[in-house]
Amino acid sequence: MSSDPLVVFTPSGKRGRFPVGTPVLTAARQLGVDLDSVCGGRGICSKCQITPAYGEFSKHGVTVRDGALSEWNKVEQRYDDKRGLKPGRRLGCQATVQGDVVIDVPPESQVHRQVVRKAATVRTLTMDPATHLFYVEVAEPDMHEPTGDLERLSRALREQWEIDAVTADLSLLSKLQPVLRKGGWKVTVALHRTHERGAHRILDIWPGFHEDRIYGLAIDLGSTTIAAHLCDLRNGDVTVSSGVMNPQIRFGEDLMSRVSYAMMNPGGDREMTAAVREAINGLCRSIADEAGISTDQIFETVFVCNPVMHHLLLGLDPVELGQAPFALATSESLSLPAREMDLTEMNPRAQVYILPCIAGHVGADCAAVALSEQPGKSEDLVLIVDVGTNAEILLGNTSRVLACSSPTGPAFEGAQISSGQRAAPGAIERVEIDTETREPRFRVIGCDLWSDEDGFDAEIAATGITGICGSGIIEAVAEMRMAGLLDDSGLIGSAEQTGTTRCVPEGRTHSYLIHDASAEGGPRISVTQGDIRAIQLAKSALYAGARLLMDEMGVDRVDRVVLAGAFGAHISTKHAMVLGMIPDAPLDKVMSAGNAAGTGARIALSNIGARAEIEQTVRKITKVETAIEPKFQEHFVAANAIPHKTDGFPELAKVVTLPQVSFNTGGEGGASGGRRRRRRG
Amino acid sequence: MSSDPLVVFTPSGKRGRFPVGTPVLTAARQLGVDLDSVCGGRGICSKCQITPAYGEFSKHGVTVRDGALSEWNKVEQRYDDKRGLKPGRRLGCQATVQGDVVIDVPPESQVHRQVVRKAATVRTLTMDPATHLFYVEVAEPDMHEPTGDLERLSRALREQWEIDAVTADLSLLSKLQPVLRKGGWKVTVALHRTHERGAHRILDIWPGFHEDRIYGLAIDLGSTTIAAHLCDLRNGDVTVSSGVMNPQIRFGEDLMSRVSYAMMNPGGDREMTAAVREAINGLCRSIADEAGISTDQIFETVFVCNPVMHHLLLGLDPVELGQAPFALATSESLSLPAREMDLTEMNPRAQVYILPCIAGHVGADCAAVALSEQPGKSEDLVLIVDVGTNAEILLGNTSRVLACSSPTGPAFEGAQISSGQRAAPGAIERVEIDTETREPRFRVIGCDLWSDEDGFDAEIAATGITGICGSGIIEAVAEMRMAGLLDDSGLIGSAEQTGTTRCVPEGRTHSYLIHDASAEGGPRISVTQGDIRAIQLAKSALYAGARLLMDEMGVDRVDRVVLAGAFGAHISTKHAMVLGMIPDAPLDKVMSAGNAAGTGARIALSNIGARAEIEQTVRKITKVETAIEPKFQEHFVAANAIPHKTDGFPELAKVVTLPQVSFNTGGEGGASGGRRRRRRG
Repeated sequence: MSSDPLVVFTPSGKRGRFPVGTPVLTAARQLGVDLDSVCGGRGICSKCQITPAYGEFSKHGVTVRDGALSEWNKVEQRYDDKRGLKPGRRLGCQATVQGDVVIDVPPESQVHRQVVRKAATVRTLTMDPATHLFYVEVAEPDMHEPTGDLERLSRALREQWEIDAVTADLSLLSKLQPVLRKGGWKVTVALHRTHERGAHRILDIWPGFHEDRIYGLAIDLGSTTIAAHLCDLRNGDVTVSSGVMNPQIRFGEDLMSRVSYAMMNPGGDREMTAAVREAINGLCRSIADEAGISTDQIFETVFVCNPVMHHLLLGLDPVELGQAPFALATSESLSLPAREMDLTEMNPRAQVYILPCIAGHVGADCAAVALSEQPGKSEDLVLIVDVGTNAEILLGNTSRVLACSSPTGPAFEGAQISSGQRAAPGAIERVEIDTETREPRFRVIGCDLWSDEDGFDAEIAATGITGICGSGIIEAVAEMRMAGLLDDSGLIGSAEQTGTTRCVPEGRTHSYLIHDASAEGGPRISVTQGDIRAIQLAKSALYAGARLLMDEMGVDRVDRVVLAGAFGAHISTKHAMVLGMIPDAPLDKVMSAGNAAGTGARIALSNIGARAEIEQTVRKITKVETAIEPKFQEHFVAANAIPHKTDGFPELAKVVTLPQVSFNTGGEGGASGGRRRRRRG
Repeated sequence: MSSDPLVVFTPSGKRGRFPVGTPVLTAARQLGVDLDSVCGGRGICSKCQITPAYGEFSKHGVTVRDGALSEWNKVEQRYDDKRGLKPGRRLGCQATVQGDVVIDVPPESQVHRQVVRKAATVRTLTMDPATHLFYVEVAEPDMHEPTGDLERLSRALREQWEIDAVTADLSLLSKLQPVLRKGGWKVTVALHRTHERGAHRILDIWPGFHEDRIYGLAIDLGSTTIAAHLCDLRNGDVTVSSGVMNPQIRFGEDLMSRVSYAMMNPGGDREMTAAVREAINGLCRSIADEAGISTDQIFETVFVCNPVMHHLLLGLDPVELGQAPFALATSESLSLPAREMDLTEMNPRAQVYILPCIAGHVGADCAAVALSEQPGKSEDLVLIVDVGTNAEILLGNTSRVLACSSPTGPAFEGAQISSGQRAAPGAIERVEIDTETREPRFRVIGCDLWSDEDGFDAEIAATGITGICGSGIIEAVAEMRMAGLLDDSGLIGSAEQTGTTRCVPEGRTHSYLIHDASAEGGPRISVTQGDIRAIQLAKSALYAGARLLMDEMGVDRVDRVVLAGAFGAHISTKHAMVLGMIPDAPLDKVMSAGNAAGTGARIALSNIGARAEIEQTVRKITKVETAIEPKFQEHFVAANAIPHKTDGFPELAKVVTLPQVSFNTGGEGGASGGRRRRRRG
């Protein structure tokens, strides 16, 4: 009847007429308004809170009078006494429509609430995790119509929540009987949905209405570190983030040496698998402790990792990944019980999702970057570089996406550098060299002052100055090039050639002294010719990978560059470009995305649709294999010069003028004459 | 073209015209003829053997000339040299059609071959197990088109066998890489199909063409014994049958005492679960040893069992089954990995199928009997009684099927009997009492002679005469009734009343001496008044259950009686009816079905369609709960008399005349005055 009251929901704007007495929750459901309810409208969960608005709403053509909703009832009163309802709030399942009304659904009452993520690109993320809680009232057993407890619970889920095809494993079945009886046949279940098959699995069950939060873990399993974010599966909030070193380091610093370890030592792969699983268990336990939750509250874990980590996590021998044709045992995404991977520090029925791998060298971590940064939805041509021991590189736009990986080695992380160290308090992270005096100043992690500022010595007294980390060495080398201490072939000049006594001879080459604490028994921190070579090898590999994708795409330049990876977040984009790590681009179009792989893992954890999306995306990505592409070597050699032997850097030239110097006195030439480092790793 | 040669297959009669050069296997597949092939027509597996027939076939309207099939080719020659082809046989994938031809497909070349089972009812069973072997040729990895090994294997299965949706667990994935490489990308896989979802799971993989047989186990898990049949999954042959005692006996002889043990002892259910699983593991190991196979060759196990065994096997607390409303944790069938139940002595990825339960007291064993005996397909009204510690009873015909269970207790198995023992060498299994002399003669398990025949003493010297088993006590009591030593109320007469000194006083009652070896230090075997009471209680429960179903069906008599259970196979139907264990029926309509539950398990193992069938059937069966039905008690009391207080036995009267005697001298009355034994168990 058109004389029924009009109900308008905001912010959706959905509207419809409903008979007097219709509960607001019912109206919302019929209109498809996103209004949460765990208890199914029984006045227990309080998730369906709404705010009625009163007065004239010309925009909606409605006047809302007092009495547009029913009076507070006992359920609402009881809830308010016990927990307190915010002013103006009502329970949508209790308040009924009495007249025309405008009803606002606050964000916390939306199931599929949107989370705005600010990073390189702002994107909104809709919460729709695989695991949800449902409150159900189950029929009691009747010996005249004998059915099992599980079958009656399944029927209740079908009738009360329209959820079909529910399964449970034996460990859940054994909880079912006591919990149903303890809850008086009213229970809350945690249901996990697989996006491929739409099947539902009961992960846990509690008597009555269960209020505890449920969590998921997004884990970025790197060669060096394992980083985990504990996320609230209701709203996507990151409750705790933590990390540990990957204990596989004791079997080999880089990927290739771990593959070698597996190749040389029978059972070596199993040792590494056990080590990484144990570390993950320890990390889960410490994260749960830090968050003050039980590990039983962790219901899901999403993993992103490179292919070698992927295989070692799953208990698969990685040896095939160390040699052409670099065949993965399985490339598609995996959904499996955590206990199948011996992950014990989470709910005993927790589920694991592992993103798909793109190719034998381009892993689930790269897929996660693609999910986070969405190159395939970019109108302009974007180059995404995930800088790590192995760099993952994506290039694409709406027409096509390409991917490859490139073996940069650990120099960018401060390894293989004479004074190198990990990014930790005491490490030099930023360097500036005065182009006139050629004197350096620097900043160390844990102190906001520059080394030439007042109070610096006092502030760093606790940590000291212990070495130079990845971002520090990149800035140091780039500043040396900008200050004319280093020529484009990568040679450090002598004191005479450069006019500074900080350039000191070291064998047949020179090094540049940044900080000398040797008089006080501290370290002598300098950049050696060997350090320059290590950085040149790393940056050449990175650049060559990007160039290979640009060749494949048929372009000479990119519109935009995104630096991903934890390291990418700390890098100075100008210095990276002076070094020639990345192709020339306007500096304001070079940005950091932070740990994009970790973000991708969080997205896959928060939204089940994103899993289907990335699985589709990965199939469409064109894989480029750097290891067998002859042009890679050519690009690599040409990229040895700083910034580059042949490619122009016109955008860089607009902001930085690099001095034209050459220190080659007929001795050692450029890095191209140096030993080519081992591929892969 | 109608001038293409005509190909007629026998025995199916399917026919069609095919171009010259068409392989016989291809023609068979196009016509839907059941011709096996594991290797997909590559001349490897030799499963597609056929026999061409030559000459005039007026029935088919065909003349087959020499040269109707192509000449032997090299593949056939090689196979014949190596293995030998039976005379007249060809390989269907190698021989091609050259002219009109009649081709016979021998039974061993049919995938879905029929196995004729002779028992109470002859039925044919079509082989279609859940697990099959498939030979596939997998594409080699290509780094330009990177895909995982699993994905390439899946594609091969789809392209070569039209099998979709293949999954594998981690333990299989870790075998995948080496096996694919060892086999040169040619492998055999064991695929398991679930009948509910049509999903395929890879259970194992071998390099090249794998010839080893694959097996399944059909296990009848009883309260007292665990019986297992090892079946060849190719042809359904039972290779080895074996059994062990159920070690749960140490926690309680009958079901109810085990439920009590779980109720009284925290963790008692887990103890019993561990015990039975360990026993099953031991049984699997010994069966594999006896068959000379590896436990890895066992890919499937089907279980049938009563509800308490069902719960204890699955690790579910059986306490709810000990009290109304007798709610099962789950009643539907279960398909799960064997390792989830700690069943380790089979392939590590073996699958378990457990038949559905019918109700809290009517288990998967009764469902298996229904699958084997198919009361719902019977035109005449059939009563099926599975005699055991707990009797399962089915009554039905094509219109309707009813089921109940009845707590007969272990007396029928020789327990609770003064000289009782299990059926083992030395036990008296048959008894006859001369109606004139009232002297007994008997037979002992392990000897074909009667005790009064020449050579009996010599033959039994090894075992001795140790006691009386279930079938022996039934015959003894029935014979005592027939010889006038026992009146219809169940009282044994005195020596004076019966005229035989074998009736000796024992307290206020009498017992009948069958065999006395006490002079030689052996046992004195007699039937006591207490034994009679125990048998009366058991048979009354059985009869009352059957009567309850007849009430529900609205009938006074049944057309046919089937005695199932291992014990049912040894029971004398005439004696059972004299006792009044079963309702009156023509003796030629009373037959034994052997271990029908075990047969049902074998059927479910051999044919995946039978699983869907029994799941459907069970939903349609009407469950009758004896424990709460007031008429049960009434029927029970009336059934105490031998054969019955009120129900007539006209069919029995046609073959046996029971003497009208009464030994009640005002002392102890019939069993109805005795202590009513505890229900359930």
